[in-house]
Parts: sequence; C-alpha cells; structure tokens
Amino acid sequence: MAERLIVVGGDAGGMAAATEARRRRPDMEIIALEKGRWTSYSACGIPYLVGGEVGELDDLVVRTPQQFRDKHLIDVRTRHEVTGIDVAKRTVEVRDHEHGRTYTTGFDTLHLGLGAVPLRPDLPGVELPHIHGVQTLEDADHLLADAQEKDCRDIVVVGGGYIGLEMAEAFVRRGLNVTIVERDSEVMSTLDPDMGGIVSEAMRSEGITVRCGEAVVAFEEKAVVTENGPVHADLVVLGLGVVPNSGLAADAGVATGVKGAVRVDPRQRTSVDGVWAAGDCAESFHLVSRRPVHIPLGTHANKQARVAGVNIGGGYATFPGVVGTAATKLCGTEIARTGLTEREATAAGLGYVVARITSTTRAGYLAKSGRIVVKMLAEKRSGRLLGAQLIGTEGAAKRVDIVATALTAGMTVEQMTALDLSYAPPFSPVWDPVLVAARKAAELVSGGA
Amino acid sequence: MAERLIVVGGDAGGMAAATEARRRRPDMEIIALEKGRWTSYSACGIPYLVGGEVGELDDLVVRTPQQFRDKHLIDVRTRHEVTGIDVAKRTVEVRDHEHGRTYTTGFDTLHLGLGAVPLRPDLPGVELPHIHGVQTLEDADHLLADAQEKDCRDIVVVGGGYIGLEMAEAFVRRGLNVTIVERDSEVMSTLDPDMGGIVSEAMRSEGITVRCGEAVVAFEEKAVVTENGPVHADLVVLGLGVVPNSGLAADAGVATGVKGAVRVDPRQRTSVDGVWAAGDCAESFHLVSRRPVHIPLGTHANKQARVAGVNIGGGYATFPGVVGTAATKLCGTEIARTGLTEREATAAGLGYVVARITSTTRAGYLAKSGRIVVKMLAEKRSGRLLGAQLIGTEGAAKRVDIVATALTAGMTVEQMTALDLSYAPPFSPVWDPVLVAARKAAELVSGGA
Repeated sequence: MAERLIVVGGDAGGMAAATEARRRRPDMEIIALEKGRWTSYSACGIPYLVGGEVGELDDLVVRTPQQFRDKHLIDVRTRHEVTGIDVAKRTVEVRDHEHGRTYTTGFDTLHLGLGAVPLRPDLPGVELPHIHGVQTLEDADHLLADAQEKDCRDIVVVGGGYIGLEMAEAFVRRGLNVTIVERDSEVMSTLDPDMGGIVSEAMRSEGITVRCGEAVVAFEEKAVVTENGPVHADLVVLGLGVVPNSGLAADAGVATGVKGAVRVDPRQRTSVDGVWAAGDCAESFHLVSRRPVHIPLGTHANKQARVAGVNIGGGYATFPGVVGTAATKLCGTEIARTGLTEREATAAGLGYVVARITSTTRAGYLAKSGRIVVKMLAEKRSGRLLGAQLIGTEGAAKRVDIVATALTAGMTVEQMTALDLSYAPPFSPVWDPVLVAARKAAELVSGGA
Repeated sequence: MAERLIVVGGDAGGMAAATEARRRRPDMEIIALEKGRWTSYSACGIPYLVGGEVGELDDLVVRTPQQFRDKHLIDVRTRHEVTGIDVAKRTVEVRDHEHGRTYTTGFDTLHLGLGAVPLRPDLPGVELPHIHGVQTLEDADHLLADAQEKDCRDIVVVGGGYIGLEMAEAFVRRGLNVTIVERDSEVMSTLDPDMGGIVSEAMRSEGITVRCGEAVVAFEEKAVVTENGPVHADLVVLGLGVVPNSGLAADAGVATGVKGAVRVDPRQRTSVDGVWAAGDCAESFHLVSRRPVHIPLGTHANKQARVAGVNIGGGYATFPGVVGTAATKLCGTEIARTGLTEREATAAGLGYVVARITSTTRAGYLAKSGRIVVKMLAEKRSGRLLGAQLIGTEGAAKRVDIVATALTAGMTVEQMTALDLSYAPPFSPVWDPVLVAARKAAELVSGGA
C-alpha cells in the first residue's frame, strides 16, 4: 500500500506542506482534512472584503479543493473535522459534517496545520451571536451575513491590534460609525506606546472613535459594556488576537510551548516521530531574542509549511526563524515593525539605545512627499541592531524589509549607515530615512563621538 | 593662525565633508570654492524641474551659500573656480569669475569634491549650443532657457541611461515629441538586455520613439545624424553618462584609477597626504566584484563626503563600499538594480545561475496590484547572491533595498528564502516577489533538489 500522509488543516499551514510533499513524492497518498468549506485562502484579505475593495469571498481563495485534487492529486476533504489523534495507533478520528458521520483512518505521516482561533475573553455575553471573530473565511461569511441582515449603524471593535484596526477601517469605508475599545494606553500594542499614539491619532483623524485605557467588562444585546459604561453596538468585532488551535495536538501528547503552540524543531518536526506541524498552531524561533515565540502570520505559515513539505517529501530544509516583522495600511497610514520593541528588548534582558527620527518618504521637493517616523533600537555597546518601527505615508512600511534583512544578518547600526540603498526623487530623500535612523542610533551607541 | 581646510566643489561631495568637519572642529577655518552659482543641490531633481513637477530651480537647492555661512561658519565662495593645485606648496589657484580676478591661497588640508562632467562624444557639431548635458544646475538653467527661447517641438535624447530616460519622460510631460537614440540593443544598459527590453517597450508605450542599435555620427543645427540618416531636433540632450572631473587632481599628481577617478582609501584619503576626495570625482570599492568602480551617484557622494569630513575633523569613519544600487521611475514604470548584471558577473570571473520570475506588487485580488519582474543572479555552487534587477509598477523599485542589504551581508539565496519580509495585502503577495526569485535561484543552485 502507498505511504499515506494526512494533513490536518486546509489553509497555508497545511496545504503548502501537502503540495510540497506531493512535488517530491508522486507516489504518496495525501489526504487533507479541513473542517470548513474553503482551502488555501487569504484571511488577511477579509478586511478588504468587508470594506468593499474585494468583490466576493471566493476572490480570496488562492486554490480550491478541486484544484488541489486535479493539479496536485491531493484528496482534499472539506467539512471534515479531525476530532481526535492517536499517535500510538497512528490514526485520526474524523467528523464528516457533510454526511453527518464519524470515521477513523490511519496515517504513516501526519502534518498539523491546525491554525489559530480568535481569543474570546471570559466575559458575560461573549457568546452572543453579534460578536464576531475574524480568522477564517467562515468567520467572514458569518460576519457579512449578520451585517447585511440587520440595519447596522454602530460597530464596536474590541482590541486595537492589526486585525481590529483593519476591520475598523473597513467599516468606516462602508460609512458606519466605528468605535475601538482598547485596554492598553494606545492602540497597536505590538508597537511601543509612543508609536502606537501616532496610530491612535491617525485613526481618530479618519473619524473613528478611539477609546484607550478602557477595559471591556461585559457584552449585551446592543452594547459593549466597559468600565465606563455601555457603548452602543449593532455588531461587535473581536480584535484581541488569536491563540494556537493546538488542543488536538496537546491531547494526543504532542509537546507544546509558548502560548500552547506546538513545539517544532527547525525542520518542523514535533516531539512525536512522524508528526509535523506548521503555521499558526506552531512555535517559531525569534532570531533576535533567541527565544521561542508564537507569531501567527501567513508569511510564516507558508514558509514553515513549505519546509515541512520538503522534509516530509524526503528533502532537507529548515526554517531558521523569524525576526518579528509585521505591517499594515490603515487609510493613508502605513505601519510596520520588526525585531524587538522596547518592552520586548527589556524582557529579553537587552540594554538598548533608541533613535527616533522624522523624515520624508520621497524627495522633499516633490508634491507627493509625505512624513515618515522611524524608531530604531540598537544594543548598547555592541551596536547590534535590535529592531525598528515605522509609521508614515505611502512608501513607509515596506522599508521595514531593509531592517528585517539587516536583523537576519546580525548587522550593527554602524554597518547599516553604509548600506547602498536605492535613491531617486520619487522613492526617497538622498539619505533614506532608515539610514538617518541608523546614523542616529550609531551615534548614540558610540556616545555621540 | 587657525588650521585651514579648503573644499573644492559646492555640491554634496564637497559640502557634506565641510559641514561634518565643522561639527567636530569649531576652530578650523573652512573655505569652500564652487565655480557655479549654486551649492548643495539635488541634480537628480533636474528632470522633475524640466517636467514641471518642481516649480523652480531654487527648489532643488538643499542649502544656500548664505545658509552655510550663517549656520556652519563656512566661507563659501561661489563663481570661484579652482584652476590649479600645488600639493608641494599646499596652495590652490582660484579664478574669481564674479570679480574677474585670479588669486592663490594656501591650505593645510584639501578636500576634493570635483564632481563629474557629462560625456561629450568626439563628433562633428557636438559643441553646438542646442546640445545640452544635464549634470549641474547651471546645465539645467541653460537647457530651460534654450527650451523657452525657441519654439521647441522635437527633442532628441542621445543615450538611454537613467538621466536620458528621465529627461525623455520630462519632455513628454511637456507635450513634446521625444526620440531616444541608443547605440546598444536596448535602453538602460546598466540592466541586462532582456530587462532593458522591458524598459524600451515601456518607453514606447508612453509615446516616446525609441531607436536602439543606432549610433550617432554627427550633430547639426536642426538634427542628430545617425548611421541611418538625420533625426530632426530642436533641442538635444546628452544622456551618455558622465566622467570624473578629476583633471585638476591628476595634474597635481594625485593618483587616479578607474575611468580616471581619484583613488581613495576607505577613509577617503587620496594618494597625497592631507588631500581627501569624495563623490562623483572619486572611486568606490564594489563589495560584490571586489574591484574599484566609478559609480557617480548622490547617495555615495553624501556618504563618502560625510566619512571624509569625520576623518578630517579628527574622528574615525570608513566608507566600506557600494553594491551598485540604482533606481528610477519612468512614467508608471519603476526600475531598479543592485549587485552585478550578467555582463558584470562574467567580467568579474564569476559563474552564476539566473532566476527570473513574474509576480505582483500587491495581493493579486486588490485592484491596485500590478506586475513586477525580478531577475536574480547567484553564484554557482556557493549560492552567494550576486545581484538583482527589478521592473514593475508602483512598489517595485524600493524592493531592491532588500537585495542590497542581503548583498552587503554576503547572504546566499538559500538564506534569503527565509527572510522575514513584511506582508499585508496592500504591500505584497504573501510570498514577496524577492523571496520567489530567491527560491527559484536557490533551486537552480542546488540543481532543482
């Protein structure tokens, strides 16, 4: 009988492994089990769907189950939910929602692309039907149906992270009243508060009500109740982040680590022989803090799953780790970060200097030139680059990739000052803002000498 | 008497050194001699001035002579041309065009920011007044005056490099007929011909007549004469590149190298003690080919001059070198390159693989998503990244900075495949085009395994 690979999860963390394994092993039997109806989609595109920039749900699907079947000979079974894993017997228990039956099937190799689930705070009323997480296309489907069904006017977003802010912008585009309730002192707590404050202001200038430093205490039929009283809400979006959907793995005895994410080695192997994992359910290694982290992003899911697939297929590949890069665009404001923030550097036991500069995204004499703020951290004494946060107009965010590359290479800020970055008036001032920040950081490291 | 620094040249290669030296040495007497009327300007902005995107010449001036005098206590003398250097006597001979006199003055330290001059082919008629180089604000001033004086309709640009193409676009914006005559098989010979061909097509689609593989043989009052006959021209722009303006230095016995550029060490010292040089008149070291090169760009001029100024001021700084990054935007097309092209890699004795991929600048499902072509070279066997060329719509060019940073760090394409680059639908597909190219290159290096 052919060797059988079972892949649990039909999005990137699963399917990128399945297709990569197939490429190398035409002989393998590959079954992919997905509890929802869609495979391989861009969950990051959901806010653009809600905002009307993307026409319909199916536009976000990169590859359909049928395409996987036809092109990759992968037996994709949607609405098939894995409900149990027995690593000793090497079987999975599957609930087939399509036909209302449950069955058990065996595997030689198992790959877990279980994903993550939105964090639901343990508060009264949190299970009310107008309270929506935004993680899967199913979530988006429910949210859009709910929004269309009733005459929505007031939207409350709980949590001011990436997805919360992107959803807030999407609803503003649709002409609705949007309020963000954030417990921290500023939105975007993945940035330092001084940078988050710039984002809070940018969101306010777009007509969004931003209520920071205010904790939610309960949910009601028509309101989100905070410490300061009720905020009227026809529809609520949870933007509190996600947690690894690793319960199945943990129950099966697969080791888990940070935030309960599945522990993996650089080849994406779990603690159980022949069981692999990738994506939002798994840990990553942070190349700057040198610690395991859980950073659920599509970029990592795709890379990790590809590495798992290469290895499952008999090749050799490793996923060395992440540096904590993330970016978003909110209305006209671009926001990006990579490496460590002040809080993260402190938690990692690192002493640092902070350079913060303001420049322009293009030559100052061009009309389209806009403002950019770059905050850069470097380790004291050694001058090793630790991270950066960037906020600005068009052209600001993608500059974070320079810093991400320099972090991966372990550069010092002094070395960065000599980087041969591109310049032409429509792209940059002659000193790119990243170089200006690096220069300032290097001066701080050397004590201004 | 105070120690005296004389700086020859009032643009970046000179003035960035002067101001940096001043910062460290408040006591030093600093005299800057500039033969033209302007100091510290963006010559790269000239096409935007001609195209009408920048209002007037003075908008391109970063700092005026008076600002240097007031803020930096630098004795800037414009229309003062240095006509001779005596390194033994430590004097310069100066022609003061303002007052029609010549004088000699002494220095303790001399810094040369002599710049470059447009290449003028040795052809009949090349000195005709309607034939313009574009290197200094004086050049721009003459060109604009000439264009306004007569009723221009037909513009011929000789040479399809950066400045030639940018000037062609600028005249098209003004509604004029523009022809580019290029001797090579495609425009933009700093790219490989397959990539240059994409640019030739893009220029044609903007209504520019592009005549490649056609050498100019003479210039006439109303025509540029090529091998194939005359092309009518009311005004001619020379875009054949520049040569170091190093004659003064060479005559004084200062050593020169590639293309006659002034030879400098990493601290920007010339072969003569106490004489420094930076910018378009000087050599750079290429970090990929490991050879001296002459790459006249404002970014290098600024960095080199700053390094010279730090050292002249008693500090310690080095300019490690360049990786050959350059970028431009022509109408809607962004073009960038870094590292080595195929021709350059061959000249450097390196064996290479070539990966060329087509992707999109943003998530494919967004309306603003456009096409990007990335060509990447890696060394055979070692997999060391050698360079990349990128052409595409908005968001394409600045991605070259990722490659420039990876080149500086000496990364392999395999290492690049794991780079934690930013992703959000408005910025990139989930696999950034640079990663897709690196993946393909890495597969070619390992023989597809």
